[in-house]
Amino acid sequence: MTSMLPPRKILVLGGDGFCGWPTSLHLSSLGYDVIIIDNLSRRQIDHELETSSLTPIQPIDVRLKAWEEVSGRRIPHYLLNVAEDYSGLLEIIRQEEPDVIIHFAEQRSAPYSMKSPRLKCYTVNNNINATHNVLCAIVESGLDIHLIHLGTMGVYGYGTAKMQIPEGYLEVEVTTETGEKVHQDILYPTNPDSVYHMTKSLDQLLFLYYNKNDKLRITDLHQGIVWGTHTRETLLDERLVNRFDYDGDYGTVLNRFLIQAAVGHPLTVHGTGGQTRAFIHIQDTVRCIQLAVEHPPEAGDRVLIMNQMTETHRVKDLAELVSRLTGSEILYVANPRQEPAENEFHVNNNLFLSKGLLPTTLNEGVMLEISEIAKKYAGFADISKIPATSTWTRRQEPGVLAIPEEMV
Amino acid sequence: MTSMLPPRKILVLGGDGFCGWPTSLHLSSLGYDVIIIDNLSRRQIDHELETSSLTPIQPIDVRLKAWEEVSGRRIPHYLLNVAEDYSGLLEIIRQEEPDVIIHFAEQRSAPYSMKSPRLKCYTVNNNINATHNVLCAIVESGLDIHLIHLGTMGVYGYGTAKMQIPEGYLEVEVTTETGEKVHQDILYPTNPDSVYHMTKSLDQLLFLYYNKNDKLRITDLHQGIVWGTHTRETLLDERLVNRFDYDGDYGTVLNRFLIQAAVGHPLTVHGTGGQTRAFIHIQDTVRCIQLAVEHPPEAGDRVLIMNQMTETHRVKDLAELVSRLTGSEILYVANPRQEPAENEFHVNNNLFLSKGLLPTTLNEGVMLEISEIAKKYAGFADISKIPATSTWTRRQEPGVLAIPEEMV
Repeated sequence: MTSMLPPRKILVLGGDGFCGWPTSLHLSSLGYDVIIIDNLSRRQIDHELETSSLTPIQPIDVRLKAWEEVSGRRIPHYLLNVAEDYSGLLEIIRQEEPDVIIHFAEQRSAPYSMKSPRLKCYTVNNNINATHNVLCAIVESGLDIHLIHLGTMGVYGYGTAKMQIPEGYLEVEVTTETGEKVHQDILYPTNPDSVYHMTKSLDQLLFLYYNKNDKLRITDLHQGIVWGTHTRETLLDERLVNRFDYDGDYGTVLNRFLIQAAVGHPLTVHGTGGQTRAFIHIQDTVRCIQLAVEHPPEAGDRVLIMNQMTETHRVKDLAELVSRLTGSEILYVANPRQEPAENEFHVNNNLFLSKGLLPTTLNEGVMLEISEIAKKYAGFADISKIPATSTWTRRQEPGVLAIPEEMV
Repeated sequence: MTSMLPPRKILVLGGDGFCGWPTSLHLSSLGYDVIIIDNLSRRQIDHELETSSLTPIQPIDVRLKAWEEVSGRRIPHYLLNVAEDYSGLLEIIRQEEPDVIIHFAEQRSAPYSMKSPRLKCYTVNNNINATHNVLCAIVESGLDIHLIHLGTMGVYGYGTAKMQIPEGYLEVEVTTETGEKVHQDILYPTNPDSVYHMTKSLDQLLFLYYNKNDKLRITDLHQGIVWGTHTRETLLDERLVNRFDYDGDYGTVLNRFLIQAAVGHPLTVHGTGGQTRAFIHIQDTVRCIQLAVEHPPEAGDRVLIMNQMTETHRVKDLAELVSRLTGSEILYVANPRQEPAENEFHVNNNLFLSKGLLPTTLNEGVMLEISEIAKKYAGFADISKIPATSTWTRRQEPGVLAIPEEMV
């Protein structure tokens, strides 16, 4: 238990994005004073990739006005690049004096981060400077701010771990010079599988250092793949609708299956489909962040790391689930990623469960996604955008089999 | 043993700096075709801090012309910011097709990295983007280039390790879900003590990833504190002289003691002087890099990490050594750093010893530094620049006792 006053004011960096937007609404609905900083880079990337959200997301000022009409609560928005404008960020922190900062302001697609050398450099430059600027500005402000960061399960790597993945720290035994066996907790040895995941591994070390040197209170959430679109708050008004990405770069595996099913295309599985991944529904994401806000680490605590996921599935099993519900066929195509073909992945998520998280399961929720999103908006989908075309190395061929030419 | 042709062409990033310059000359003298990229940022920082090298270093074109006169060998120089100009870097790599790239192009002072929020951000931005740009450009070039990077012993941390520090990797024992004990090699858990050291910890993860995904051949040298000024090549002509930094930011502990002794000032020890650090002479630095060039990892090898240091000393013992040789008094002042007051530090450096390194020891070399550098140039020293004024946190007072006011 902390002895501080409960937090009132929360600054959300990247509050216009897929997780940031519903989080901002959820926290606002709970009575927190929410402030968004966002440079709208995700909307700019849509232009660049010639894609768009399947759901008709509104400009940020329309969204915020709708929220004010619906809830009576105002969320101010600052247009600012957190990675590039340190002084601007510091000024906002000094002026707003937030109790909590939630940091979503990172480029969050692995395929996008591998798409070209320029985008590798962009992802590293943007993500590392954004995280470091926030840490440095909190220290310079002198305020006691709890920083909550959205990391990824991918920092653990999807390799050959024969153990349940712990929450951030691993107890190891080492032998000293005198032959003594010593146990110590270390950060779980990272093993990222893309430039994007690598940036989240770097973030961990930034947190380790600033926590040690400046005693910052930091919560790092290692999140699984988020599925689902609506939350209770985004459903309150059509203008509040959340993003739904289905393209080969930003669309996660389940979303791509749903759209393929809706347009009558086979579900394209990369490689054997034996890749096991962790998942969480967007409604649980916003609930987890609420729990993280309500349970901050105390001054002097090490970085609090929690695994923000509720279940694991093999990609192949997901395809079979969607296939059963929709009658779609499954098509196996080349894997554009460099990763183990098959992996086990057992994850400990006791910290959130112990704080009261009640997971929404895929089995319950997928049918709703199919009827409420995929079928409803299928007519707007540009199916030429579904195949994943980024490859992990120059030697690989992209999985271009995904859409037969006659369908494009 | 590698089956490739021996390297001929070497690109040195940061080849105008304290380690980069003598390395470039040494490799050129051995017959390698050396090319320097340097944006001269270290000279710019001299202007900013109103300091200068105690030794009269020449402009880079004067240095390079002198080397051509002395050796008959030309070293081309490209003025380029490796961290900011990815395209320029790639173009040079494509044009020059080096066999080896040696990467010194990072801000390398811990106190400078802690001097202000702006300089923390500069250090992170410069060092991470420089390292990532090099890695990304090597991949994009498609060339099989061996990358050698100058890291620091500081990635291990100067904490409470009860073991001999291994060369990069630590064997640990973990328990699997079935209760089986498994041994595996992990990167030694990092524990950096400044923003500068933190950037070198981040670099390690960049290497881990690019080695895994793109099979890059990488050698990471964890270097101790470098002392000494001259190498065989820099002594060949006065215009080739190397830097000697004695200010509170860039001057390492031994250099500050030497100048204090030369001007008749007490040797200022931070804290108890119980801090143990690793050291290496600049002549051994250039020899180690030669050995790294001659012993590259093979394709498919993990990152080769070697500890580039030859001896360890407590700061207090160094002060006593200089005091014995010069008659100077020792003055204990507040420690501006946040670090353990005392530490043990045993380091394994078998890899370089096994490749033929014959260390120059402090006991032999310090007297020469006193007579050849400190006494010779003492008249040029600005003693107001000697105190270390950067502090690690806002709570600390700088060690301002270092120079009594009447002497400034």
